[in-house]
Formats: sequence, structure tokens, C-alpha cells
Amino acid sequence: MSEQKLGVCYYPEHWPEEEWAEQAAQMRKAGVSLVRIGEFAWSRIQPEESCFDWEWLDRAVATLAGAGLFIVMGTPTACPPHWLIDKHPDVLPVGADGRARGFGSRRHYSFSSDRYRQLAAGISEQLAIRYGQNPAVVGWQTDNEYGCHDTTLCYSNQALVAFRAWLECHYQDIDTLNRAWGNVFWSQEYRSFSDVGLPIAVTECNPAQHLAFRRFSSDQVVRFNDAMLAAIKPHGHESAWFTHNFMGNFVDFDHFDVMRSLDVASWDSYPLGFLDISWIDEADKARFRRSGHPDWASFHHSLYRAAGSGRFGVMEQQPGPVNWAANNAEPYPGMVRLWVWEALSEGAEFVSVFRWRQAPFAQEQMHAGMQHWDGAEAPAGREIRQVAEEMINVGAIHPTPAPVALVFDYPSIWGVETQPNQSAQNALKAAFEYYSAVRSLGVDIDIVKPGEPLGEREVVLLPAVPIVSDALRSALQDTQAHIVLGPRFDNRNLDHQQRHPMLPDDAKVRAIDGIRPGVQIAVKDAPSNWYVCDWLETLETGLPSQYQLDDGRALIHQDTKHTYINAGVSSAFLRHLMSEALKARGLDTRRLPDGLRYRHCDDLILAFNYGPDPVELPTSDLLFGSTLLPAGGVAAWR
Amino acid sequence: MSEQKLGVCYYPEHWPEEEWAEQAAQMRKAGVSLVRIGEFAWSRIQPEESCFDWEWLDRAVATLAGAGLFIVMGTPTACPPHWLIDKHPDVLPVGADGRARGFGSRRHYSFSSDRYRQLAAGISEQLAIRYGQNPAVVGWQTDNEYGCHDTTLCYSNQALVAFRAWLECHYQDIDTLNRAWGNVFWSQEYRSFSDVGLPIAVTECNPAQHLAFRRFSSDQVVRFNDAMLAAIKPHGHESAWFTHNFMGNFVDFDHFDVMRSLDVASWDSYPLGFLDISWIDEADKARFRRSGHPDWASFHHSLYRAAGSGRFGVMEQQPGPVNWAANNAEPYPGMVRLWVWEALSEGAEFVSVFRWRQAPFAQEQMHAGMQHWDGAEAPAGREIRQVAEEMINVGAIHPTPAPVALVFDYPSIWGVETQPNQSAQNALKAAFEYYSAVRSLGVDIDIVKPGEPLGEREVVLLPAVPIVSDALRSALQDTQAHIVLGPRFDNRNLDHQQRHPMLPDDAKVRAIDGIRPGVQIAVKDAPSNWYVCDWLETLETGLPSQYQLDDGRALIHQDTKHTYINAGVSSAFLRHLMSEALKARGLDTRRLPDGLRYRHCDDLILAFNYGPDPVELPTSDLLFGSTLLPAGGVAAWR
Amino acid sequence: MSEQKLGVCYYPEHWPEEEWAEQAAQMRKAGVSLVRIGEFAWSRIQPEESCFDWEWLDRAVATLAGAGLFIVMGTPTACPPHWLIDKHPDVLPVGADGRARGFGSRRHYSFSSDRYRQLAAGISEQLAIRYGQNPAVVGWQTDNEYGCHDTTLCYSNQALVAFRAWLECHYQDIDTLNRAWGNVFWSQEYRSFSDVGLPIAVTECNPAQHLAFRRFSSDQVVRFNDAMLAAIKPHGHESAWFTHNFMGNFVDFDHFDVMRSLDVASWDSYPLGFLDISWIDEADKARFRRSGHPDWASFHHSLYRAAGSGRFGVMEQQPGPVNWAANNAEPYPGMVRLWVWEALSEGAEFVSVFRWRQAPFAQEQMHAGMQHWDGAEAPAGREIRQVAEEMINVGAIHPTPAPVALVFDYPSIWGVETQPNQSAQNALKAAFEYYSAVRSLGVDIDIVKPGEPLGEREVVLLPAVPIVSDALRSALQDTQAHIVLGPRFDNRNLDHQQRHPMLPDDAKVRAIDGIRPGVQIAVKDAPSNWYVCDWLETLETGLPSQYQLDDGRALIHQDTKHTYINAGVSSAFLRHLMSEALKARGLDTRRLPDGLRYRHCDDLILAFNYGPDPVELPTSDLLFGSTLLPAGGVAAWR
Repeated sequence: MSEQKLGVCYYPEHWPEEEWAEQAAQMRKAGVSLVRIGEFAWSRIQPEESCFDWEWLDRAVATLAGAGLFIVMGTPTACPPHWLIDKHPDVLPVGADGRARGFGSRRHYSFSSDRYRQLAAGISEQLAIRYGQNPAVVGWQTDNEYGCHDTTLCYSNQALVAFRAWLECHYQDIDTLNRAWGNVFWSQEYRSFSDVGLPIAVTECNPAQHLAFRRFSSDQVVRFNDAMLAAIKPHGHESAWFTHNFMGNFVDFDHFDVMRSLDVASWDSYPLGFLDISWIDEADKARFRRSGHPDWASFHHSLYRAAGSGRFGVMEQQPGPVNWAANNAEPYPGMVRLWVWEALSEGAEFVSVFRWRQAPFAQEQMHAGMQHWDGAEAPAGREIRQVAEEMINVGAIHPTPAPVALVFDYPSIWGVETQPNQSAQNALKAAFEYYSAVRSLGVDIDIVKPGEPLGEREVVLLPAVPIVSDALRSALQDTQAHIVLGPRFDNRNLDHQQRHPMLPDDAKVRAIDGIRPGVQIAVKDAPSNWYVCDWLETLETGLPSQYQLDDGRALIHQDTKHTYINAGVSSAFLRHLMSEALKARGLDTRRLPDGLRYRHCDDLILAFNYGPDPVELPTSDLLFGSTLLPAGGVAAWR
Repeated sequence: MSEQKLGVCYYPEHWPEEEWAEQAAQMRKAGVSLVRIGEFAWSRIQPEESCFDWEWLDRAVATLAGAGLFIVMGTPTACPPHWLIDKHPDVLPVGADGRARGFGSRRHYSFSSDRYRQLAAGISEQLAIRYGQNPAVVGWQTDNEYGCHDTTLCYSNQALVAFRAWLECHYQDIDTLNRAWGNVFWSQEYRSFSDVGLPIAVTECNPAQHLAFRRFSSDQVVRFNDAMLAAIKPHGHESAWFTHNFMGNFVDFDHFDVMRSLDVASWDSYPLGFLDISWIDEADKARFRRSGHPDWASFHHSLYRAAGSGRFGVMEQQPGPVNWAANNAEPYPGMVRLWVWEALSEGAEFVSVFRWRQAPFAQEQMHAGMQHWDGAEAPAGREIRQVAEEMINVGAIHPTPAPVALVFDYPSIWGVETQPNQSAQNALKAAFEYYSAVRSLGVDIDIVKPGEPLGEREVVLLPAVPIVSDALRSALQDTQAHIVLGPRFDNRNLDHQQRHPMLPDDAKVRAIDGIRPGVQIAVKDAPSNWYVCDWLETLETGLPSQYQLDDGRALIHQDTKHTYINAGVSSAFLRHLMSEALKARGLDTRRLPDGLRYRHCDDLILAFNYGPDPVELPTSDLLFGSTLLPAGGVAAWR
Repeated sequence: MSEQKLGVCYYPEHWPEEEWAEQAAQMRKAGVSLVRIGEFAWSRIQPEESCFDWEWLDRAVATLAGAGLFIVMGTPTACPPHWLIDKHPDVLPVGADGRARGFGSRRHYSFSSDRYRQLAAGISEQLAIRYGQNPAVVGWQTDNEYGCHDTTLCYSNQALVAFRAWLECHYQDIDTLNRAWGNVFWSQEYRSFSDVGLPIAVTECNPAQHLAFRRFSSDQVVRFNDAMLAAIKPHGHESAWFTHNFMGNFVDFDHFDVMRSLDVASWDSYPLGFLDISWIDEADKARFRRSGHPDWASFHHSLYRAAGSGRFGVMEQQPGPVNWAANNAEPYPGMVRLWVWEALSEGAEFVSVFRWRQAPFAQEQMHAGMQHWDGAEAPAGREIRQVAEEMINVGAIHPTPAPVALVFDYPSIWGVETQPNQSAQNALKAAFEYYSAVRSLGVDIDIVKPGEPLGEREVVLLPAVPIVSDALRSALQDTQAHIVLGPRFDNRNLDHQQRHPMLPDDAKVRAIDGIRPGVQIAVKDAPSNWYVCDWLETLETGLPSQYQLDDGRALIHQDTKHTYINAGVSSAFLRHLMSEALKARGLDTRRLPDGLRYRHCDDLILAFNYGPDPVELPTSDLLFGSTLLPAGGVAAWR
């Protein structure tokens, strides 16, 4: 798909059929060419087990296609209808408290239910048989937001049985598992795989068991998605692409694994909703409440571009206030346009606004759309029209491969979560902070999968990768880039046993200081906003250290190829360290005004102002936008 | 009941019978003429299913009546005895976690248990048969504090069955319900009423289901209370009155509905306990910790006066420290006197102190009384004696109808709670803040039921009424008063579907900014303590706006009859807006010293000092009290 | 045991057998002469019900003994193996939510399981039969850390049955219980003991029931431990001693009662881990994060010395960062040495480091040891060697009996917890604060059991003793010491009924002001850091008061023998009050620098610097240590 498309999410079943054609025409006028439908419509497609009703959907597809819209068909498996739950209550997920989580919202199924996987494959296949050869149906989305509402982990008996089978498959015999997990500790030894339970006990379970359960649960998502693909892919036409809409700030399963059977990674971008519920600090939550954090959308574009090996899109774009955060802010005027342009600049193949018309009922009635619930045009409608016009002038754009790469690894994130040892430890947050530090210096940064070749990169960052796969180890050995390592690097295997990291000079971590939240340890002879917090490792090594603390402990060890950042550091200090690493490789860095960000796309530069104050751009020769860029403003020049 | 009475709550069963007569005589000496008994005595009246023991109660009634006391008889149904639970464990309430909530404290029954309703009506009727014609028994209280300890909502199977029946009664057929709730959303459609579950699911349930469950649960309380009245009322003598003792800060059921079968609304006034556990801000909790918030008791007097259509009383008056808050402060000396006088000034027919003598045992042993547990007189005893003497001099008093009315609506409060969309949204708090703003200007304010004629009022406030009944709509159309509307006015129907509010100029709410707690948005060209917080609506309207924000958004839309306050505003700004609205209708406003409040009763003015510092009154010609009114002081003049 | 020993905790089962001899030799070189083994090894001793494997343990014992080490044998009952749980799932503890707490960590048994008590006694006896006569086995530890992970209280049906039997034993007939508990309140009366439930209800249970359940649960621990002793003691040789390793900050059962069948009290000293999870204020948590609170270890040494009637030891000494707090700090260099010296100065018979070599796997892999997990020596290894050398020079030391005693009472702590009536009430914290105030004045203080003769003491403190036993009452009457009483003294009996405290002048507590956290009430004419917080009692008494508040309320009542501190007071004010009380009895007090503490041992003085800054000692003639004592430094002089 070379052309970048604007899209929208639409629910024909929510509106009188006689309005469909008019709405489709309005979409086209708004610059939309792609429409996603179907993903919550199971109860309309199959109102009873024995009764299918395809006609309304046939007419909806025909109406949309007739208006010139391309269709992404969502399989409806995120919402099994009531008759299915009635007949098969065993498909329900079970919480850690042992209680079934019931009907009445969505995602009420367990990834470990064999029965549900079959039923879901069945309805998905029916849908694919009916619409797979329709030329207007250009893409397919499996299910919806896997794992949302804490549904990746399930504590049902089915999950237990599947977990035991997974373990048997991985370890072959129980003594191997006992040794790998160190089950001699606290007499936790199993006599057979049927002894293994779910990781809930009087106190903390074995971290090896916890990590295994996380890996198993991720594999269950992969297995489910693979089954969906096996059901629908054979029926799609040749040029159709297959995707799933992932979420933001979400690492409960390994997205890289799920992507193995998909073509395009897509994700749902809600910069304000996720800011409100994230770990971002309160000051930034207040400062960026109407725009989102300046690096949040970019971070995810980059992550999912990696997941899709270059191919990604935004399946749901926040169009105004959402309904599901604790505090649902109104974006700045122009903010939707900014978000869409940023996605395009990162190479999104499509950006699809969620949703067309605001619902007058049910859970999401306070979620904005391109139209108000009474059909009047909403700000997102106007802004999408503007982007559509600007796109014509600018033409297709492609992000320039970035000189800096950040290695992102899901099992490592679970590893840190399994045994944080300090209350603020969060590997996803660490990855985000390093990403943000580089970008705040005006330098582009790409996320890469572990093990991917590191080719032409100047600097490679591994802020939080305790578990290093063989492939990643090779890639690190092969690269000429400067490698920046964060604390905890390479200190665990997949059984969560200790290991010495692969560091130059045979360096060993010999002490860890888990620092209370709020305690800031000053860096010697340094500005007051450079400090250490959360975590400090002391190494046994001959490697020189660049800095030290007032109490003499060493900070930041380096050789020519590596920088080991052996501590949690303040954002100002991290920005300084990144700046030094980048400059050492000849990269041009500058401290951008707070909230301003750039993206380079061949000869094009785009600028985005996420901050509350206007900023002056370095040029007035703009393709669009204004030199004094207001809050929520976007500009482009060559 | 024209005479205002002082009363007390008494538990003869807690004390040796030989002390009853002496205690009764002491009550009379303390100025008490009314005594409530019986409401927790079931295990003594009926120690076994087959065995009643009335004699002790006969003697207690005779002793109290013999001392010249009038009796309010409480039915004992808040505490079913152990034999009843043993035999009928199905009467227990069930929590949201699916577990029965057991014996061992109180309120261990479900409003949805048909069996319990019958058993409760049975014992209540027995009591009424025995004492209904006793001339000393002037009043009857049903049960005790309905809904306390989160018992309004029950998640039992009985509740589920009753909920389905309630829905069937309201919607007739399931397709009507599906349409009304928008169940097509997320394939939530039901095929029959037996598909409907309780509102617990993987994530947020349909708000329509949530609101319906709240309305149903309220109706179950009404149904229970109606059954009690049907059992006891026929046996009471003609002049007997019937009441229930409601609570403070409590809106889990519709008190106006419950009152339809009762004569007098009464409530339990614990200004310090409720301050400690309320949503009032920390600074005021510290400032008023020994007095309570200056508007809290008045707000509830006014609310329950409305509920009783003018007839109300205080059934339990805090007498000193209570035991059940997180921090149980000691009131200022004189505080009980102040609270009692304020209740009388609001028109209470009786004020009954809880309790006579502090208990030496069990849950409430740290709850003060008019006597210490060893029988010595406690501060409340002395203060009640003082009030009794002062009342003789002052005579009966009646509150002057207030020029300002506030419309209070229970379903609206549930509506906001169902889908707050911003973490600080709380309709009860909003009502309280508007009430307080008016009263802090020295102006009286009455609460009215929705739909009640708004007659002679100058200004009518609807701070938080998203759901407008037909009757209220008519009353608003009929009134000549200036109408002040708060945000979210008239934007939902009872099925929690969106609607455009009935606003002049066909104004529509087009954007909502849910503002993070802590963020304050300055009003342009205004004092620094005028700001917007929590919530800001942007209207599509030609109505002029009186103010704007620095970013240009419009604030406070008005025409001659309406002021629409489209935001959450700071208390200083709210006081200013109220002052402007009142002055425009010729009302005399003044900023009272913090903590000072007035109430006008015909030609009488009462002043109450809730603040920690003495305040100077405008006159020295006082019926009682001192011109330099100390903390906890009350004064009156004509 | 006259000689003070250094020890270590060791798990031969975690390491290859071929390394045992070398590790044992290393222990000896490090100065270690005592080694605890066995306490989590059940699955290795008895891998199946029908199969014992003693050989490996025989060889481990022989290897350690052969290296010249003395052995403390731990019985392995804290970790029943999987086969036992499989066969007897009824031994599992049950949480307050009614769910069994399962296998997968440790302490997965209920103290109320008769079956488990028998099984545990069985394996313990087997162990004792096999090793009891081995001369190298000098001590025995029952189980491990009774009550850890909230396992003292169990809500199983077995616990319920046992609770009823316990009540029947204590009250004989149900009417006695009903009267004692005041069950007439809220119709809570029981008809027989089989009516009694566990203390979970719709709202707060009767405090008498709560307190009885706490006492019962404590007795269940005692009963379990007694059964273990009955099984093992007959098989031990004559000079063997028996102990259990208690915890810090832990009062869920009565340790004095458990000690009745043991010889030596031992405890597990983790000054940093417990600081992090304790109620100590945030500023001190930051200040002392690398050392622990300066009085925390001493307080527990003193407490367990009392529990062991003079005989105690440290079974587990923190060796570096632990793994189980929220934030696991790295101790200062030298800190382990300081902790060990302080334990020795308090009279510990042994100090045993947990653990020898850090584990490479399982839950505690981030818990430091004397060796790193790869076998390299860790800081604790070096520091223990240093202490071993210093001990040779210093010789055995004995703490001088302190002039000040603090009475510590477990049932009183439960009593306050049962009905705190103010959110910050915590009797353990109160005891600690009084202890700390005395010690910060350079004066030694001992903890004593209630009822123990108060002999030569100058001052006796009872900071939080609402429940006074007859023995304590006698001891207080007999002593010549000045008695300092904290609020709530002697105001409840064991049925949690009110009583008037035994105070001079027949003083009665007539009002309690439960003060919100954050509110500080200034003391009149006093420094600004003297204030009242949390709690203020007003007494009816002729006793003079030393201070008053600005509002006139009286503070600190005294006669020649008593000081009644009728309030929660700031630490500066408490230190002043303690200083006055001590000086009045001729004791030499001085304000030590923050973080510095002394202990007097005959003619020896030891000084410990817990603070972050160096402090100057008053002498340079030191046995060890430096005059400018650094953070984490210890020094001694005569």
C-alpha cells in the first residue's frame, strides 16, 4: 500500500439503514477513503446459534463500497453474544480471585478456552467466506484490542491445564523444570507437571513460575490469533492485508510474536486518554493534558512500525475527548490534525478516526467522533478535511531511517515486573524515557525488535533489557554502533536465574541500591538537576567511570563501544548523557523547546507543538503551518 | 405537632431494670420529653422463633410513660436475631463479590428478600398491636437507617430475579429495553428478560443498566418500607406519626419516594463524624473539625424538611465524640447546644440526642451520650438542659420560607455517578457547594423536590440535574424566578441516553473538557481565586457569555431568566456568581465571616459560629448568646 | 551459653554436594562457628509420603560438624511439600475472603489444623530422633517465622470450630459470654457457642469478639509450638537449647506466651527492609534508608531479651540489600559490622547472618549473603571477619541493666487495634517512640514483660497499655520507680469493656479528642515543635497539670509517683518529657546527635552512628572504631 489513507470507524448497526448512504457520502466529502466496520456486530450477524442474518451487512458493505469507500472488516470475536455464553459459560475468563468475569461489556472470553477458539474461528471464517472476495474489502482486522481490560491473564481451570501442557512442552521432564526454577527453595519441588499451579500463593511465588505464566499467557494470545488467521486468510483475495489493532502502553503479550501471522501492525492512538492513566508524572499530565505527551504517539508509531516490519497504521485515532480515562480532556483546536500528520510522518499507511458519529447511548456515549451524536460536524470532522487537502499538496511521505535505535523486548519487561526490587521499576517507562530524551534533542529514533540487524545505526539503546536472546546478543556483537545500556542489562535468563551480563572487562554488578521514591542523590560537581534516583548498581570492573556521587560511588562506565548507565537518572541528566553519546557519533543535537518535536522524512521536516505556548520555527518557508506555531500546531517545510 | 420537643435515644435493655425509673426521672430533669426505644431489641422481644417476651418492654414503656415521657417506638428489623438467620440464611445480603454478608453487626438482610420482608412486617405488626393504642407512644420509626453500611445494593440471586421483574414491568418487552439501552453496542442484546444480569462485567457495564439497577434498588427500599407501614399503621392511634431516621450525605435511594408512606422525615445528625468521612476538602476538615462544616447540618435539615413536605425532626443528634469516623473529634464546648438550636431554627419538630447513657460495651462504647457510661452527666446533658431553658423564653419558632430554592434530585445524582467522565464529579457535592455559597452570603435557602411548585422564590438553583422529570420541566416553565443551571443540566433521559438540554436559544453543549484535579484555569481579567476546575462545557449558542477564560473559551451564559454555569468553578467565583444572581433579584447579600451563619425565623434571627475564632455580632440586644460570639456559640435576637 | 558466637544460615540442598566442604571451611575462616540448616528442606528429607531420604542431610551435618561448626537444626514445617497438600488440602490456611491460600511459596498451613499439627510434630520428631544426640547439634529452631505473611489469623472452618471451643473453655456458658461482650447491643445475642461466627459481618463486629479472636489465634500459635517442643525436646541432648526465630514489628501473637516452652528467644533482624515497610515517617525513612532507624534493632533486642528472660540471639542478620521490601537499599559500608556489634552489646548469645551464599534462583535471589551467588566474597563476609577479630580483643560483653523499663503487652496492642477510634492509633508505634525518646538521651532502656518485678528501675514507662493484668497491677503497686503512663492506660478489660483506670486521685477520663492527621495543637508558652497530635484526653481530676493548650485544656498530670501523658505528643515534646522524668530521678541525660546511640556494658561503652553524617565521639581512647565516627560506624571504649 503505497498511498497513505484517511479512514474512519463506523457502526452501521447503530444507525437507521436509511441514513447509511448519506453518511457514506459525508465520509467521502470529509476526505475519508477507508472505513472499518463489523468488529462488535456478532449479535446482529448471528442473533441465535441457529440463525444468521447477513443481509443487513451485505447492504451496509454495498452502500459503503458504492460510495467509493474501501473497507476493513473486523471479525466480531471480542464480543460473543449472550446465547453463546448461555450455552458455553466455560468460555468466560476467570479472575485471580477465582470468579468468572461475565457478560455485559466486552472481552468476556478466555484465550485458553479451546471451545471459544473454535467458535471464534467459525464465525470469522463465515465472515471471510461471505466477504473475502469482495474487492472493496481491502483489509481484515482480527478481534479487537487483545488483552484490553486485563484479559491476557486468565485463572481458569482451562488456563491451568494449558499452562501445564505448555510447561511440559518447554521442559520435557519435571526435574528439568525443578532445577531450572530452583524449586528446592522453600520445598517447592513438583513431582509431575500436574503438580504445577497458577502463580497465586500465600506470598510471592517463584519468579520463574511468574515469568513462565506471563510467557505462556502471551503464547495463548498468539495461538488464538493464529487460529483466526488460519480461518480467514484462505478466503481473502490476494491483495487483502491482515491486521490487529493493538493498544498504547500495553505489554501484556508479545506483539512481535502476534505479528508473525499478520501483514500490517495497527494500533489505537488515544494520546489524552493514555496520558491520564499512565505513569507519566503529574506535572507533565497537567502541562500536556490537552495534547498528550510529545513523545507518546511517536513512541508507539515507532514500536508498531517495528512490529509490522515497516508496515503499520493507526486503526483508531482519538478525535476529541474520550470517555474512559479518569479525566477526559478536550484536545486543543487542531490537535487531531497534528496527531494525524505525525502518524503520516512516521509512515502510517492509514489513519482511521474512531469513530464516525458519536453514540447517543451505551458505554461510549461521551466519546467524541467526527460528527456529534445529532449528526452535526465535530472539530475532528473539520480537521480531517483539512489534512486531506494538505496531503494532496504534500504527497506521500516516508520517514527517514533514524540514526538512533532502541531495542524493545517484551519478555524483559515481564522480567522486571516479575521482580522489580524497587517500587518505581518499570521497563516500559524506562524505554519511553530514553526514547523521549533522544527526541527532545531533535534527533529521530526508531524502535527495533531484539535480534534485528542494527545496520547503519550510530547509537543503539537498551534501557531495560535484562533478558538477552541469542539473536540480540549476535546483533550487538555485529553492530558498529555505540551501545548504551541501562541498568539490569542481561542479568537474567528466561528461567529468571541470575547471570553476569555480557559487559566489557568482565564487569560484574556487585551491589544494587534500591532508592526510595523521592530520594535524589546528587552527582558530584554537576548541575543540581542531575541526580540519581530509584536504582544504583555498583560494578566490580576496571572500566573507568565518567561521574561519581558525592559519596564516591561510581556512575556511568564506558569503553569505546559501550556506555553502561548503572542507575536511574533524572531527565536532565539523561538528556545530557544521550546528547554526549549522540555527539560522539557526529549527530547534530539541539535542545528543542519543551513540547516541540521534529520528524525528518527525506527532504521534508515536520514540526509538532505539543506544548501550551507558541514556539518560533527556524523558517518561514512552510508547506503548511505558521512560523509562530501555536499549541496544537503542526508545520512542514523542505 | 406544633410544639418543638427535646428527645433522647434510650436502650432500657442495656441497663438493669432497677435503674430505669431513676434514669427516666433524670431525662425529664434534663428537659427531655421524647424518648426513642426499641429499634435494636428483637433478640429480647423474641429470643427464639417460638417465644416472645413482651413483659420487660411493657414495663419499660410504663416506666418511661410514667415519668411523663412520650415514646417513639422503633421497629427492630435492622437487626434480625441469630435464630432467624440460622433458619433463613437466604435473607442475608450478598456483596458485589458474590459472598453473603453475615450476622455479627447489623443490617444483615437484603431488601430483595421476600421472606425477610414478610418476617419484618410480622414482628413490626406484633409490636404495633401491642403498643399502637398506648397514648404515650406518639410516634413510630420503621427499622433504622436504611441503606447504612452499603446495604441498598444487593447482588443476591433474589435481587437478580426481582431486578428482571422490575425491568419487565418498566419495559414490557425486551426489544424495547434493547433499543432504550442501545444494547446493539458491543453485541449486548438480550433475547429475553431472563438474559439480564446484575451490572458486573469484564469492564464498565452499560450505563443504562447501571442506572436501572440503582433505580430498582431504590424501589426495593420503598417497597420494604411500604410493607412495614402496611403492617403497623392500622394499629397505631389516630394522632400517631410515622417516620424513618435517614442519614447524612446519603443518596443511595430516593428519600422522597420512601417518604410517600411516612408522615415526618427524620434524620440522624452527626456533623463531626460526617465531616471526617466526607468529600469536604482537607483544609475545611481541619478548620471545622470540632464544629462540622457550617452548612452541613442546615443542608440536611432543609433537605429532609423538603422530604417531609415541611415536617421533619432530628432523631439522633451527635452529643460529643462519635466512634465510627476515622478520627473522632471532641466538639467545642457548647456545640451540642448550637446544633440543637440550628435544628429548631430550621423547624425541626423534635431533636433527639443519641444516646442517653454511653455504653460500656460493644461497638459504640466510644460514642458519647448525655451521660458518661458510669452515669455521670456529660457535656451534652448540661447543654440540653440549657437549651430547654432557653426554649421556654424564646417560644416556638418557624423558619421563614427562603427566597432561594435548590432543586435536589436523586436519580440525577445516580446519573452523574453512573458516568462521571471526570474523577471529581459528584452531584451531591455540587448541590452542597451551591447551597453553601448562598448561605455564606447571609441569605436563607430551601431545598425543594423536583416538580414542586417554585412559587414565590426569587432564585432557583439546579446545580446538578442531568435528568429532568416532566413535572420539574413544568415547574421551571411556570416560575418567575431566575433559574441558575449548573453543568450537565438536562442532558440525559432515564435510560441514560443523550439529549439536548432545554436551554434558551436552542443552545447545545458541543464540547466537554474534563479537567484534572489540581488544574485551575484562570478567568480572564478576574481575581486570582476565581478559576474553573473539574469541568468545562463549550456551548453552541448565540447567548452572550459573561466571562471568558484566557484561552478565549466562553463562561457563564445568560438571558433574562437563566444563568447557565457551564463549568466547575472555585468557591470564591461561585460565591460571586450567586451574589450577582441574588442581587439582581433585589436580595440583600453580605459576605459573612468564615464559619458564621444566620437563619431568619419570622422576626427572629439566629446566628451560629462554626469557626474557630470569635466573631462580633451586629447587635448586642440578644435573647441569648453573647455579642462576641465564641467558637461553637449561638445567639438570637429579634 | 556464655560465649557469644557468630553464625550463618546455610542451605546445603541448594548447592552441589562436592562444594560443601569448601564452603564449610570458608565459613570457619570468616569467623563463623554456628550454622543453621534444615528449616525449608522437607521436600528433600521426605520427597514422598512413603519415602525418607536422610543420607544427604547426614552427610551435610557430618561435613559441617567436621569443619568445626556447631549446628542449629531447623524443623522444616514452614513448608509442607506438595504431596502433603495433595493428600490433605484441608491443612491450607483460609483468608478473610473465604478462599484457601495455596501451595507455591511458604507458610501454607493453618495453625488450627489438627491434622497439620500432628504431621508437623511427626516430621519434627523424626528429625529429632535422627540428630538429637549429635553433639554438634547444639540448638533447635521450631518452624520458621510464625505468622509471617499474615498467617496467624485463619478463617477456615477448623478455625471456627476451634474458636468456639476456646470460647466455651473461657466462658463456660453462653450467657456469661453474652453479658461479657454486651451482646444485647444490636441483638447480637447467641443461644449457644455454636452460634458464634468468625469476626466478619456487614459492618464492624463486636470489639469483644474481635479481641477474643486475636487472643484465640495467638493461643493457636502457642499450641502449635508446644506440640513441636513435645515432639523434639525428649530427643535432644541435655545441653541443647530450643528456640524460634521471631520477626520485627510483629505482634500478631503473644511472643511471651510462645516462649514459655522455649529456652532462647531469637529473632530475624532486617533493619533496612523493616524500615521501608514500617510506620516510621517518610523523612526518617529517607534519612536512615541505608542504616535503619537508630532504635529499631535495639528495641527488638530488648524486647526479645525480655521474651527469653535474658537469653536471646539474632538468628537472621541482614547482610546487605534484601529482596522483599518495596525499596531495597544498600547498607552503608560497615553497617553489618555495626548491627552485629549492637546485637552483641545487647547480650545476644549468637548473631547469625542470613545467608551464606546469595541464591541464583527463586524468590530470594536478590537477597544478599556473605558471598555473592557466584561465590565471591560480599561486603558482609568481610565485615563479619572484622567483627570476629574485634571480638577476640574485646571479650564477652554483657549489657548493664537499664535504669528505665518499658512495659510491653501484646493483648493491649490488639486492644488498641480493635478499636483505635483515631486513624493513627498504633500501640506498637507508641511503645517504639517512647523507647526511642529515652535512648536518644543517651540512657539505656530495657523492655519488660507485664507482671515482671520492676525492681531497681528508676523510671517505668507504659506508653500504650489499656489492658492491665493483675500481675502488672501488683508490680506497679510494688515498685518505687516513677511511673509514666501514656493515653488509654488501663481503660479496658479483656472483654473490651470500659473501666476507669487505676489513677491517683480517682482521676477519670471524661473526653477524648481524636485529632485528624496533620493537625498540630500548640502547647501554651512552649517551643513551636512541642505540640499535641492524634489524641487528647481530658481528665476529671484534682491532679495538677504541668502544661496546657492554647484553648485551656490541661496536659500532663502528675503526682509524686506518676506522670500521666494524656495525649499524643510531638517527638521533641516527648523527648523533653522523658528528659524531665529521668532527671527527676537523677539520671544523666544529654541530647545525642541525631543517629548516634550508646549502649553501656559494664565498664564498656559502645557507640553506633546510624546517621548519614560523621559525628565526633567524646574520647579518642578507643578499643576499636574512630573518634570521628562515620555513617555506619561503631566504636567502643572503657
